[in-house]
Amino acid sequence: MGRQHAERVDLAVSTVIFALRPSPDSDLMTLWLPLVRRIREPYEGRWALPGGWLSPEHDLETAARATLGRTTGLTPRYLEQLYAFGTLDRSADDTRVVSIVYWALVHADEAAQAIDSDNVEWFAVDDLPELAFDHRTIVDYAVWRLRTKMEYSRIAHGFLGETFTLAQLRQVHEAVRGCSFDPANFRRQILATGSLVDTGEHLTGTSHRPPRLYRYDTAVQPADHGPLTPSKEQA
Amino acid sequence: MGRQHAERVDLAVSTVIFALRPSPDSDLMTLWLPLVRRIREPYEGRWALPGGWLSPEHDLETAARATLGRTTGLTPRYLEQLYAFGTLDRSADDTRVVSIVYWALVHADEAAQAIDSDNVEWFAVDDLPELAFDHRTIVDYAVWRLRTKMEYSRIAHGFLGETFTLAQLRQVHEAVRGCSFDPANFRRQILATGSLVDTGEHLTGTSHRPPRLYRYDTAVQPADHGPLTPSKEQA
Repeated sequence: MGRQHAERVDLAVSTVIFALRPSPDSDLMTLWLPLVRRIREPYEGRWALPGGWLSPEHDLETAARATLGRTTGLTPRYLEQLYAFGTLDRSADDTRVVSIVYWALVHADEAAQAIDSDNVEWFAVDDLPELAFDHRTIVDYAVWRLRTKMEYSRIAHGFLGETFTLAQLRQVHEAVRGCSFDPANFRRQILATGSLVDTGEHLTGTSHRPPRLYRYDTAVQPADHGPLTPSKEQA
Repeated sequence: MGRQHAERVDLAVSTVIFALRPSPDSDLMTLWLPLVRRIREPYEGRWALPGGWLSPEHDLETAARATLGRTTGLTPRYLEQLYAFGTLDRSADDTRVVSIVYWALVHADEAAQAIDSDNVEWFAVDDLPELAFDHRTIVDYAVWRLRTKMEYSRIAHGFLGETFTLAQLRQVHEAVRGCSFDPANFRRQILATGSLVDTGEHLTGTSHRPPRLYRYDTAVQPADHGPLTPSKEQA
């Protein structure tokens, strides 16, 4: 390849930040993520995932949170390590970079308050521009992980408030899994999991038959983190 | 804490290598892993996971395979990235080390041929010595991931040959999940998944009613890696 070996390995931390926003073409909720326009080479002008070099004073999760705050002004409801990407050719020049990537979920109402600057823009996952480095591979992997995880855990919570209606929960599942559910079947199946608690309250200010509000049963521990201590901010 | 900040972050790759071996106390198969005795400070004399610094010429998986070969002489049937461990205090001195950890499964017959040297020894997961650094946390997390994964994927294959009896498959599930299954129920449930193919052959040289041999249906893709291209060696 004529490519010179790098003399050292540099370590970066990047984040894939998911939020639900309405599709521009319809009323359906779809998955969006913020990207940062690169202002220097390599890939100057291309869109990339928010991230930066790991400082020796920061642990990995702190670095991911700092990137997220700096880019979007948001605090994630769910933040988890995704994967470490470290193939030899993923940098455009002769440097060697390993990126430890985190993924985050933010609430729709938080995402609406997100900072929009000249160099940060939100894109629908189904309609991304060409990305720098191997960031398209990273996004594809993050979407796959989100969809897989939705099937066996309570990760949908990361997109919802403390209480929610079954219709809101169904919208999250539909947006992430890219399909639609029959409302009655969805209701029956999700209640059968035993993970929801009826709060006894109803959504106010809506129709003549206001829908019930549910919350996740916090007595049932999600198994996502196993023996690793989850951060306080995580669901 | 009076602890000085490190000037840079060093990157290591370590591996948790699982094999099934008979328990010393009974005929049951149990989980074992190899550890390496440290011959220098910090933690001189303590047992640690096999690993080493990441060289700029090696990608992450190549580094993990090299460690595995050097330590045990084995080629894994299953190798997957586990997690990147990077808290500030995980090194005993003022250095800052991020370890990207892989986990591997090797076959029982391969594990029997593994290199045993003065500084490498196999231990039962249920009876580990005190480990160096945060390696006990890493092992606990790897065991949890293995048990979780066993429930929804074909990862048991990593412990088995190309063909196997239902009793052998049940032994793998029992060893990993730390429980026992009624043979008839296990048979019914595992066949109902549709992931096994009856080879039409039988295990020879055994009883008067030799058991049938099965294989995994390779037409059904395991979803473990999603859009990331799995290595050829992986199941």
